[in-house]
Amino acid sequence: MVCTNNSFLRKAEILSIGSELTSGAQLDTNSQWLSRKLAEIGVATGWHSTIPDDVEANLNGFILAASRAGLVVITGGLGPTQDDLTRETLARLVGVELVFDEASWVAIQDLFHRRHRICPERNRVQAYFPKGSEIIPNANGTAPGVFLIHQGTIFVALPGPPREMEQMWTNEVRPRLLNANLGKLGFGDGFLSRRTIRTFGAGESAVEEKLLDLTRRGADPEVGITASNAIINLSITARGADQADVQAKIALVEEIIRDRLGDLVFGANEDTLAEAVGLLLEELNLTVSLVESVTCGHTASLLGAVPGISKWFAGSLVLYRPEAKDNLLGYPKDLLQREECVGPETARFLAKAVREKMGTDLGVAVVGYAGPGDGGPGRPAGLVFAAVDDGSSVTSEHTQNWHGSRSEIQHRTALMTLNLLRLKLLAIKADQISCQNMPSKEVP
Amino acid sequence: MVCTNNSFLRKAEILSIGSELTSGAQLDTNSQWLSRKLAEIGVATGWHSTIPDDVEANLNGFILAASRAGLVVITGGLGPTQDDLTRETLARLVGVELVFDEASWVAIQDLFHRRHRICPERNRVQAYFPKGSEIIPNANGTAPGVFLIHQGTIFVALPGPPREMEQMWTNEVRPRLLNANLGKLGFGDGFLSRRTIRTFGAGESAVEEKLLDLTRRGADPEVGITASNAIINLSITARGADQADVQAKIALVEEIIRDRLGDLVFGANEDTLAEAVGLLLEELNLTVSLVESVTCGHTASLLGAVPGISKWFAGSLVLYRPEAKDNLLGYPKDLLQREECVGPETARFLAKAVREKMGTDLGVAVVGYAGPGDGGPGRPAGLVFAAVDDGSSVTSEHTQNWHGSRSEIQHRTALMTLNLLRLKLLAIKADQISCQNMPSKEVP
Repeated sequence: MVCTNNSFLRKAEILSIGSELTSGAQLDTNSQWLSRKLAEIGVATGWHSTIPDDVEANLNGFILAASRAGLVVITGGLGPTQDDLTRETLARLVGVELVFDEASWVAIQDLFHRRHRICPERNRVQAYFPKGSEIIPNANGTAPGVFLIHQGTIFVALPGPPREMEQMWTNEVRPRLLNANLGKLGFGDGFLSRRTIRTFGAGESAVEEKLLDLTRRGADPEVGITASNAIINLSITARGADQADVQAKIALVEEIIRDRLGDLVFGANEDTLAEAVGLLLEELNLTVSLVESVTCGHTASLLGAVPGISKWFAGSLVLYRPEAKDNLLGYPKDLLQREECVGPETARFLAKAVREKMGTDLGVAVVGYAGPGDGGPGRPAGLVFAAVDDGSSVTSEHTQNWHGSRSEIQHRTALMTLNLLRLKLLAIKADQISCQNMPSKEVP
Repeated sequence: MVCTNNSFLRKAEILSIGSELTSGAQLDTNSQWLSRKLAEIGVATGWHSTIPDDVEANLNGFILAASRAGLVVITGGLGPTQDDLTRETLARLVGVELVFDEASWVAIQDLFHRRHRICPERNRVQAYFPKGSEIIPNANGTAPGVFLIHQGTIFVALPGPPREMEQMWTNEVRPRLLNANLGKLGFGDGFLSRRTIRTFGAGESAVEEKLLDLTRRGADPEVGITASNAIINLSITARGADQADVQAKIALVEEIIRDRLGDLVFGANEDTLAEAVGLLLEELNLTVSLVESVTCGHTASLLGAVPGISKWFAGSLVLYRPEAKDNLLGYPKDLLQREECVGPETARFLAKAVREKMGTDLGVAVVGYAGPGDGGPGRPAGLVFAAVDDGSSVTSEHTQNWHGSRSEIQHRTALMTLNLLRLKLLAIKADQISCQNMPSKEVP
């Protein structure tokens, strides 16, 4: 989709090394990540290739990539075992020997010591590099990477674990590539950038219907729609002579999208619903607590991924059994008989009760059936109820439209709950603004 | 790792077609799925290759795959648009024309009618096939697949959407391949099977050191080690004349591994620590409740992924703020002064308190610092304390060895906590068995 029509431009190849990938034991997510990052600096990816930990397959794969790609990004094969062939293969390809780097060996040993572990002697092989190559330091692991240019092709070798690879890309490889002047090297005549607008609360086709003029083929910037776990993402991709030009094109389309979609938009790029909720709570100086059964702690854990949440999050009571609801929040017997712990009144009762028990400004509750079995006649898996209580009013929502596995239902229910809270916070914020804008009068 | 040492055997190549894959807009999960399915019928995968929707890239990719693989499985490029090149490329490779199949065109039109939609004329291209090929019907979509053998290489073309591809593989392709007698075609002389043994509680190298004779290159069955989020997986891959032979080989190695690793092993294949905990609680007829701060509901949510947990799980109190710990569980002021909510005594106190509050047989607590910042001097991110209280004794553990992002620290801490509970349950079980085996005497 992106850049492939410019077939005169040089392209990148991403080479993933590992029998755990070709055998299907493990899923390769590095290639997708790297393609996105390459696109951000204007380089199109022409090939993803995955090969096993085998001497012949490695050498053939490297030779093939060198023959067709201008930039070869290799992940994997940099570990300390006999299976790890990337250093050796690169040296053979270029026709040089491997040389020992004392500083890298010291860094590897240091890492083990910092983790209170003994550094095995066999990790020493990770301090050998093809003669004449640049060493890419690894802040999060033992395997340093390799950067070298051979007969006009750039080779970048990075370790397989995403946490190590991503950090090295961002801090070490990306700056090197930008310094290398990729335009002159034949990778493209301009800049490319992408921004993703994230929405929750409407289906893919309902969102697309509002944006048909933007999503048609050939539009510039391109707008693509993808759905993932009930979150609909709109990716805006623009190309231009310089970054300012590209950013201006994107900003224009983003404004149109935000204008048409309103409260459906909760953020951009990697933003999460939990972060959107956190920002609003901080801005409004409010605190929240939860009670959850169907999501079993997952709603809290989405908030828990945000650093510094203790400013606005008191806690969540994961009350799986009816007795626990009674014991901690005084869940009434008549409500138990009417709704059996799952229903609109239960959600509203629990939201209020947890707010009072935990002493927060808002209380949120979510109950329902996660499956795989149903909760009785008329109580299918995916039937869930959520409520938000702010002391003066209660907002609630229910759905029975979640389909999928137990984990999928739990995840989507947690997102729906956070979104209900987000909408409530937006309403509170709008109220405050309209009050501030009213002619001033004395408030007791 | 798997089969790659049998380099005399022919291998499969999986070819994924689509610019949405090379650009990183979409993640390829088909290749992993197909590799696993190929392994089940004794075929090793030698290459995964991904190429964009481009005429030249397609033809080159197909020629390369035909030159090195005995079986080429293609996904994508069978849609109705100009971007969809798989039919045309296959015909060019084999040197035949595309011929129209009336029955397929009727089936495509029928599918549109059943979905109450008008069938566009452009979908007619999906009813063209390379002359002499077999048509693979598609029960879930408009794009039929293609099966053909050219110069000894088997080509299978399937659509990209997993729901269509997987159904066609299972119902149409797999039986065709088994009929084709893969052993005689050079793919292997028998069956292949894999079983993964899952461990927690020791690092990759510590586990490998106990199994060096099994993990050496060329061992049969092969044993491979992979680490993922502090879980160390040992995959046993065996090949043999029939399934009974293969299973016997695997069972033998599994027994050795379990014998050497003891309690480190918590399950096999897709088993989770939460499932292992659940099975033990059910077997011992015990109930549990949790209190967590650092993992913020994530420990509970791992248990929550297991269906039917209400038999043994009462709930979890996610108490993020100190006041919440005091308010719900009476966390003492002197302990707050000494440990500031994170320390060994805090974990032990909370485990006991939650057990009593929730009325369960066991109480589990976990506290600590998830980062990214530390909790003060000598209190780094990754310092965590867990405890399990069973009413008569308390087991506890702490670590400061978790490194990584906030989410990684939370995930590993949750696993450590579940593992501590698992070990306690194993100890309880061992006690019960040794009591049963003791010479019987009257117990009051």
